[in-house]
Amino acid sequence: MDITALVLAYAHAEPPEDVCAVMRLSVLDWAACGIAGHQDGAFDSWAATLTGQGAATRFDGRGSALAEAALVNGTLSHALDYDDTHFAHIGHPSVVVIPAALAVAEARGLPLEQMVDAALVGAEASVAVGLWLGRDHYQVGFHQTATAGAFGATVAAGRLLGLSAKHMRAALGLCSTIASGLKSQFGTMGKPLNAGLAARTGVEAALWAQAGLTSAEDGLAGPLAFGATHHGAGADVPFAWRMGSVSHKFHACCHGLHAVLEAVRDVDLSGAAQITVHTHPRWMTVCNQPSPDTGLGAKFSYRHVLAMAAHGHDTGDITAFSDANAQDAALVAWRDRVGVEADDTLTEMQARVVVDGVVYTHDLDAPLPFDMRQDRIHVKARALVGARADEIAQAIEDDDLPRFAQLLTS
Amino acid sequence: MDITALVLAYAHAEPPEDVCAVMRLSVLDWAACGIAGHQDGAFDSWAATLTGQGAATRFDGRGSALAEAALVNGTLSHALDYDDTHFAHIGHPSVVVIPAALAVAEARGLPLEQMVDAALVGAEASVAVGLWLGRDHYQVGFHQTATAGAFGATVAAGRLLGLSAKHMRAALGLCSTIASGLKSQFGTMGKPLNAGLAARTGVEAALWAQAGLTSAEDGLAGPLAFGATHHGAGADVPFAWRMGSVSHKFHACCHGLHAVLEAVRDVDLSGAAQITVHTHPRWMTVCNQPSPDTGLGAKFSYRHVLAMAAHGHDTGDITAFSDANAQDAALVAWRDRVGVEADDTLTEMQARVVVDGVVYTHDLDAPLPFDMRQDRIHVKARALVGARADEIAQAIEDDDLPRFAQLLTS
Repeated sequence: MDITALVLAYAHAEPPEDVCAVMRLSVLDWAACGIAGHQDGAFDSWAATLTGQGAATRFDGRGSALAEAALVNGTLSHALDYDDTHFAHIGHPSVVVIPAALAVAEARGLPLEQMVDAALVGAEASVAVGLWLGRDHYQVGFHQTATAGAFGATVAAGRLLGLSAKHMRAALGLCSTIASGLKSQFGTMGKPLNAGLAARTGVEAALWAQAGLTSAEDGLAGPLAFGATHHGAGADVPFAWRMGSVSHKFHACCHGLHAVLEAVRDVDLSGAAQITVHTHPRWMTVCNQPSPDTGLGAKFSYRHVLAMAAHGHDTGDITAFSDANAQDAALVAWRDRVGVEADDTLTEMQARVVVDGVVYTHDLDAPLPFDMRQDRIHVKARALVGARADEIAQAIEDDDLPRFAQLLTS
Repeated sequence: MDITALVLAYAHAEPPEDVCAVMRLSVLDWAACGIAGHQDGAFDSWAATLTGQGAATRFDGRGSALAEAALVNGTLSHALDYDDTHFAHIGHPSVVVIPAALAVAEARGLPLEQMVDAALVGAEASVAVGLWLGRDHYQVGFHQTATAGAFGATVAAGRLLGLSAKHMRAALGLCSTIASGLKSQFGTMGKPLNAGLAARTGVEAALWAQAGLTSAEDGLAGPLAFGATHHGAGADVPFAWRMGSVSHKFHACCHGLHAVLEAVRDVDLSGAAQITVHTHPRWMTVCNQPSPDTGLGAKFSYRHVLAMAAHGHDTGDITAFSDANAQDAALVAWRDRVGVEADDTLTEMQARVVVDGVVYTHDLDAPLPFDMRQDRIHVKARALVGARADEIAQAIEDDDLPRFAQLLTS
């Protein structure tokens, strides 16, 4: 199947219930990340400049037209980089497709269930487009979250608008000429912005196609189209449901630390005398800061996050990564019990931790049983937004979109 | 000088008066194209969906926030593809930089003269970025009007906002991750949209940098930056003023017909028995439709436009290219006096027309004397928007931005 046919197939597919169940967890996870991202405040001056007319819900409480709400919500929900990731193509699907789906579903008064379905097929389309674009596209510098994501957002928004086949094609064509996003923004506020822009692109492409804008017949795979211009490999991608294996973050720090923290999650480290971390060599230059003295630095330090774990600090709590904690004398002293070694027999997703001679391992690629995933996302959401997390979970369960939207800003 | 330093040099340069004079003509030409583009109506359903809050002037009379006004005005002014072109990099500078400059200058209550200066340095920056990106960027499928143009719009908007050096750099970084636009949109409504998107990108990048968004340190030439990802050649581009040689369109048809129409502009063809057109071979597959029967087809027909010229139809008048005219029996019969031959000794900008044995030639690359350019733009503007053209020209001469803006919609 060519990529455009594949994307159109997702647009009209009925998703299986078990994958929908995971997507509902992603909706809760996304909501908590967005509320916390707004409360963090870094993007507030920016969001204040976006004062469009309209009633679409935004995390910052300002009303907006649909596309602008998608821009703001996509950006705020990626602000903390704590949202879900799909490693098939390496992208963050939820922060792009959910804001697009929410804006359109809310405007059309649709049930939350339809928003979840649309977000899910949009996420599947984004992963498929990301796989089709391939690793070169990412390596040369494009940000898959944004580029592949925009096509997913277009599918989500187009489905909820009920676009005809002709208009859905035009929407994908318009998306192809609006979609953008570079990895050179990593480490700056441009990275969350890329997610927001992709969400906006999806809403605009769908709305504008509906308003009659014509576009390239095949914006993805045609001559001079998105793939040809953006270093796309054009890989053959089969139809499959891949969002069941999306990864949720349970620690508010660099992904390279997660397998280690998971390996010793049930281990009491408080009395440990010597700990050796074995990790993939790539992580040694990414998240092995031996002696960080800021909260940001602590997010990239094996030694420090293990000291936090040993002292009962919740590494799932954003606020635990404070400058004060990074400078806490007890934690700093405890770090010296930890050594870190590279081991190229491990994958990037695996870790081995030896605690006083006892070996603990973890592989992030191993699927998390649904119940455990559900429990942990609830715990994470509560750590981020308190009791509101349970109300949001209830609104999702009740299929109550107005209540869900209200809880994002209240 | 590296490209970012060059762009920053334009941002703060004081433009020479003779180039400013040409830019003022481009402002009149742009205004006429935009008013006519709105009156054409093709984009009206689309523009009606963009109903933001704000008082920024739009050709369609709806108020908007700044960025949205730039989007709408850029699109409408390129809708007829009758606006100016710079052949150094092959792009349409005015439809991108003027909407960005207008929106910001109007919001800040600045004089029209400052809007012209900002649009001019923005246009120069866009041509310079286009030259730096080079021919591969264009050949692989990127639309220079939009991609290079977005950086020019950023410079124009950033200058009028009075951005600090740090913020101007951030604005260019943000532009690098928003800018987009593919040539595969040619022949669809996506082409004018690309111009509008680029104008919006410039306004957003500048406003958002001012609001504190951080971005890549060097969005153009850094690692994984715009040039590296978008097939940029990274050519060495010297500082120069190039907008003095911008090309204005004086015929409402394909550019490939212009040199021919110019060659016989002062020739009375009504009694001619045999005419032979000699043109660059590339145009033979572009604009040599022998027997068009629609207005659109007539815009790509040597035989038909010469028939129009022989019958006193104004090829500068958009409405002259009607279906009725294309099917007019007298014009259709007259076409048979015209033969067309390819000649590879001619450049794409040159034509030779032999009328009953007498040879007439024209080279579009030959600079048009200022007075003649001024006269012809006034004539063109009157053909497009009637007497309002003179009022707009007066407002430009009077440095009266509020009056100028008012005339765009009244």
